[in-house]
Amino acid sequence: MAAYDPKNIFAAILKGQLPSHKVYEDELTYAFMDIMPRADGHVLVIPKAPSRNILDMEPEDLAAVARTIKKVALAARETFKADGITILQANEAAGGQVVFHTHFHVLPRWNGVPLRPAAQEVAKPDLLAAQAAQLRKALDG
Amino acid sequence: MAAYDPKNIFAAILKGQLPSHKVYEDELTYAFMDIMPRADGHVLVIPKAPSRNILDMEPEDLAAVARTIKKVALAARETFKADGITILQANEAAGGQVVFHTHFHVLPRWNGVPLRPAAQEVAKPDLLAAQAAQLRKALDG
Repeated sequence: MAAYDPKNIFAAILKGQLPSHKVYEDELTYAFMDIMPRADGHVLVIPKAPSRNILDMEPEDLAAVARTIKKVALAARETFKADGITILQANEAAGGQVVFHTHFHVLPRWNGVPLRPAAQEVAKPDLLAAQAAQLRKALDG
Repeated sequence: MAAYDPKNIFAAILKGQLPSHKVYEDELTYAFMDIMPRADGHVLVIPKAPSRNILDMEPEDLAAVARTIKKVALAARETFKADGITILQANEAAGGQVVFHTHFHVLPRWNGVPLRPAAQEVAKPDLLAAQAAQLRKALDG
């Protein structure tokens, strides 16, 4: 497996070099809206520490990310009245990975609504900002 | 969300009431071959403690399951010469959940090979037993 390359877009988001619609942040993790959502309210949860994917991730970061995924999933279910949540995490290109900083997809789901294909369409920034604000409110509550 | 129903097939596997091709076990987690694999070497990782899905799971179980997923993913990559790994976890029927005891799918992936549809075909027991033995060997090593 290739080494972690610090020049990736999620590393740039963590450094504040690229904007993101922040949903949640703690010491070890960061969550933000996916700009090409496969479902309405699609959030990405990432560790702050550098890792390419879970195959080279430290156990404490993995545990912290798992805790944040649960928090975000509960908030998303409440906020968007989701019937379910799908968690998806890709390791290496063959596994579906496109950005090589570990990330978990938290996908709100509704009965009868399939996931949209990956990387299809960029969502309107105003919509993502509004969804992020709703999620932040649920997470603060 | 409905409460945990202890009459589910993964609870029966944990109690030894149903057979499974065991891959790994520790105090808090259990891993075994999916009998309807969406990819060769498809493993399920579950917490031993009862939970319906991650939405009602205890943080320590979530952390333990995350550690086991990483172990199994590394072993699967080595054993099956996988190019990547996809992790999938479904919450509630709308999220794709069929068995209501929390479980994470660890799916070995190869370049150019798509996942098979879910719940399509039951694999031959001899094949699953051989794959489980290979994985146990890698996990012990």
